[in-house]
Amino acid sequence: MHFADRLLDAIDRTNSIAVVGLDPRAQQLPEALRSKYKVDLEVPGDPAAVAAMFLEFNKAILDLVAGKVAGVKPQVAFYEQYGWQGYKCYQETIRYAREKGLPVIGDVKRGDIATTAEAYAAGHLAGDAPADAVTLNPYMGSDAIDPFLNACEHGGRGIFVLVKTSNKSSVDFQDQTVQGEPLYERVATMVSQWGRRCIGKRGYSSVGAVVGATFPEELGALRRRMPESILLIPGYGAQGGTAAAIKPGLDKDGTGAVVNSSRGIIGAFSGKPGDWREHVAAAVEAMNKDLNAVR
Amino acid sequence: MHFADRLLDAIDRTNSIAVVGLDPRAQQLPEALRSKYKVDLEVPGDPAAVAAMFLEFNKAILDLVAGKVAGVKPQVAFYEQYGWQGYKCYQETIRYAREKGLPVIGDVKRGDIATTAEAYAAGHLAGDAPADAVTLNPYMGSDAIDPFLNACEHGGRGIFVLVKTSNKSSVDFQDQTVQGEPLYERVATMVSQWGRRCIGKRGYSSVGAVVGATFPEELGALRRRMPESILLIPGYGAQGGTAAAIKPGLDKDGTGAVVNSSRGIIGAFSGKPGDWREHVAAAVEAMNKDLNAVR
Repeated sequence: MHFADRLLDAIDRTNSIAVVGLDPRAQQLPEALRSKYKVDLEVPGDPAAVAAMFLEFNKAILDLVAGKVAGVKPQVAFYEQYGWQGYKCYQETIRYAREKGLPVIGDVKRGDIATTAEAYAAGHLAGDAPADAVTLNPYMGSDAIDPFLNACEHGGRGIFVLVKTSNKSSVDFQDQTVQGEPLYERVATMVSQWGRRCIGKRGYSSVGAVVGATFPEELGALRRRMPESILLIPGYGAQGGTAAAIKPGLDKDGTGAVVNSSRGIIGAFSGKPGDWREHVAAAVEAMNKDLNAVR
Repeated sequence: MHFADRLLDAIDRTNSIAVVGLDPRAQQLPEALRSKYKVDLEVPGDPAAVAAMFLEFNKAILDLVAGKVAGVKPQVAFYEQYGWQGYKCYQETIRYAREKGLPVIGDVKRGDIATTAEAYAAGHLAGDAPADAVTLNPYMGSDAIDPFLNACEHGGRGIFVLVKTSNKSSVDFQDQTVQGEPLYERVATMVSQWGRRCIGKRGYSSVGAVVGATFPEELGALRRRMPESILLIPGYGAQGGTAAAIKPGLDKDGTGAVVNSSRGIIGAFSGKPGDWREHVAAAVEAMNKDLNAVR
């Protein structure tokens, strides 16, 4: 089934536009897990132990959030950090999330050309543990995107292309003026073009865009520039983006975007007494309430 | 030891500016290996079998090229394609290359920010099987580069930032005019600035740049714009770049750049009779001769 249709169905089913970022950091996991796997706070842990700990943590998170959020977004860097054991955990996390009916956006930000891009597409959107969608970097131009469009058009997969990222130094290149408009607007125009061949029954394309919550004005302009693209909005919560800041990224029907929070959810128990799971569940509920108030 | 110094020493020691791209494709490996590991040409192979085949192939290549080229550049996409088994092969390839004294440039083209970039730096430039250097994507600005500079300044590691890539659609964004110059020139200016804190005894920085052989004029201009950066030049051979096209990327002393060839070396036996290793060895010799003629 078409990725954008599936993601919109998940939004409807869960009444949530939230996406939970699965970015585990060994030092920030619950104390009970760190003790169980003997992960020392002072030294980089043994890769196999950390990977096993991450998987147990992720499964607990996925059990908590299934049916309550639109999807999850594992950030592959936190797994790659632990080599192949970490990478295996990344794949197992994807598999478990999909079993739970959660759409998975692999935050891999890959960008390469020709047969290399084909290899990335085959690895991340097909094979043993495919994600439903991945994030991509557009710096190399359409050659880096084209090999993924086939998976969007015919394989039921999606992509989110970096357009305007949430970090401060996104201005270094993305905001540079090109023919009277910022570079990110030019990238957005291309995203819209790439997406035309992948539009689903509900009017949205499986070619989406990453636009940070930290730049509300740009968010509204980019919403208009890419009317058929679902926006993936990072920067909510820990990075400072509010629900009000996100509103310009939504469509009239209150969809058209998903909003990621990582630390705000999976680190919600930090410094708090009691069962860590309850703090995570409460954080999900609070995020949904906060976002739904502006939809 | 400082990465740029080590790479320049390797160039001197081997009298070669060639870098061999380790981009294995299951269908293009020697028939003897495909038979041994029962990798069928028609279907995607079993990940474990393909990974074992890749490792045997890579080790044979590394045995052949050690002492004869300046370094090797595994492209991680071809390993990630086979999930964690492929990723393990990528790590084992790096380890074996370093044992053989070959500098390793991990072609990962990562680009992300803050703790995510730190995780990538920790995973790829430290840990169990660190590369000597990695390629990075600058689209997110200096936030995506900063976390790697510490490893360059204090850890003896290096980075190569994408500036002007060798593919046709690099013009889509990289060539857009920003304040009277192409965007890639602006990126080059930043690369030069990032590199100033990482200059070694031989006058070169451990912050290098990727500039394609397919655009000779741009190569000369970028050489001048980044006088202290070592250029990593892809696009030689299979992609159409010649030694003459590469000359503008070299410094007066005939160094300051390394030139990658992947298929031209590791696929040199394709369609030829006899021992595949001899064709690879001959291709390395021919590439060195071709490049040294313009140094």
